[in-house]
Amino acid sequence: MQTFQDLYSEAKNLNNDELRKIIRSEKFRGQTSGLSKNYLQTNLIILDKKYALDFMIFCQRNPKACPLVGVTDVGDPFFRTLGNDIDVRYDVPSYNIYSNGKLLKLVNNIADLWNDSLVAFAIGCSFTFEHSLIKNGFKIDHIENNKVVPMYKTNIKNKVSGPFNNTMVVSLRILQKNKVDEAISICQQFHWAHGKPIHVGDPKEIGILDVKNPDWGDKPRSLSKNEIYVFWACGVTPQNAILNSDINFCISHTPGHMLITDVDQAAEVPIIQ
Amino acid sequence: MQTFQDLYSEAKNLNNDELRKIIRSEKFRGQTSGLSKNYLQTNLIILDKKYALDFMIFCQRNPKACPLVGVTDVGDPFFRTLGNDIDVRYDVPSYNIYSNGKLLKLVNNIADLWNDSLVAFAIGCSFTFEHSLIKNGFKIDHIENNKVVPMYKTNIKNKVSGPFNNTMVVSLRILQKNKVDEAISICQQFHWAHGKPIHVGDPKEIGILDVKNPDWGDKPRSLSKNEIYVFWACGVTPQNAILNSDINFCISHTPGHMLITDVDQAAEVPIIQ
Repeated sequence: MQTFQDLYSEAKNLNNDELRKIIRSEKFRGQTSGLSKNYLQTNLIILDKKYALDFMIFCQRNPKACPLVGVTDVGDPFFRTLGNDIDVRYDVPSYNIYSNGKLLKLVNNIADLWNDSLVAFAIGCSFTFEHSLIKNGFKIDHIENNKVVPMYKTNIKNKVSGPFNNTMVVSLRILQKNKVDEAISICQQFHWAHGKPIHVGDPKEIGILDVKNPDWGDKPRSLSKNEIYVFWACGVTPQNAILNSDINFCISHTPGHMLITDVDQAAEVPIIQ
Repeated sequence: MQTFQDLYSEAKNLNNDELRKIIRSEKFRGQTSGLSKNYLQTNLIILDKKYALDFMIFCQRNPKACPLVGVTDVGDPFFRTLGNDIDVRYDVPSYNIYSNGKLLKLVNNIADLWNDSLVAFAIGCSFTFEHSLIKNGFKIDHIENNKVVPMYKTNIKNKVSGPFNNTMVVSLRILQKNKVDEAISICQQFHWAHGKPIHVGDPKEIGILDVKNPDWGDKPRSLSKNEIYVFWACGVTPQNAILNSDINFCISHTPGHMLITDVDQAAEVPIIQ
């Protein structure tokens, strides 16, 4: 029987269609960092239509954390502007089911939960620019070791919209100090994928008191001499907003387990023509 | 009595607060191209909340023409993320009132039309990058002559959302052929303001049959030798979508007469912190 590590190594060589096929069949249920080179990966939020306008406004007001790259029509489970056959019911490796502000369970498809009142939102993800960093000689620890990127709640307040508020979530990468400027310069091109880092240096300055214990994802390795913590705004921010709300039902991806789109990461706009 | 030309020359030296003040008092009711150097100017659409979700999705799916940079809460007439005191009821020099898909009239404030069911949307505008073009030695005909930029309906189909469809509207600038690449390079940084041009060259290729007769704005001058037509996606596109719909009430800016924000045109995100 194939282990997950085998499948991950294999998945690194697959194209988008092939990747979504092994995700849709639930053969691959792992984290997606390092996969689907050069294409936009996205976070996922699914809500009842009664929350959809407030949520879109939340994304518009918090564009560093929530760059909105796709929205389905109400009740339509396909992201038609992100690819030819992207079905939100099956095409994410793992989903979080939230009920009344609490994480209820994890599932690998949401076929029995989808209904005509739901709207799905795709939000850009920092995995998108990691390929460019690697191509430029950066080492990304969680990709090299097939781990889930560490993610943290911060004290950076979100702009409020309706029931959505709380604070920004960030993802962490450890970089050589003398390479930070180059990383910023690479990442700022990816404005659909969080762009420039939101913070460089001491985690405490943004309210992360114990960097060794992330709120989502795997623990980071220790910092070596000449290295520094670099934090990017993260598309898990809406999940943090939902944890703090009275929304009675929400589906998201499981952090690190993203939707793979057919949008070129260098595209000027995240729309398939 | 001051003529409009006097006021325009004077307005070029005013800061954002001062500009909005003479607009709010209806002393200045003209076009805003060339004003408010280095700050984001925006198109305006105001709709009943029942159309708001479909309209936001329309903007998300047509980001070249409709880069959404601000949304009010339902019933709140202030764009709180675009500046400290931006009142959509007064702060645009001229408004178009649409009823049942027809342009009904132009007014200079909408105080008596605003109500608790309305939502206002601010959409990035190409005036934003003109200052950078000028700083780099470009001559922008409509600014030099205080005219309204020529705008055209095209045959480029919009992605549909609810009642919003129809085709893209574009704005025209005439450039030296050998300067087009430089213009593209400058404009692509302004992804909240239409970014790169959508078409360079023959207007007929995008369905503009008579370039001398724009659908909005003033007629362009003739093309000299070594010059070429350059077209940008335009935030008047939603007005074209509304003309083709059964939406019974909508307010917009009058093309060319924009909302002036306090967002730096070079900001990574269009949000006042």
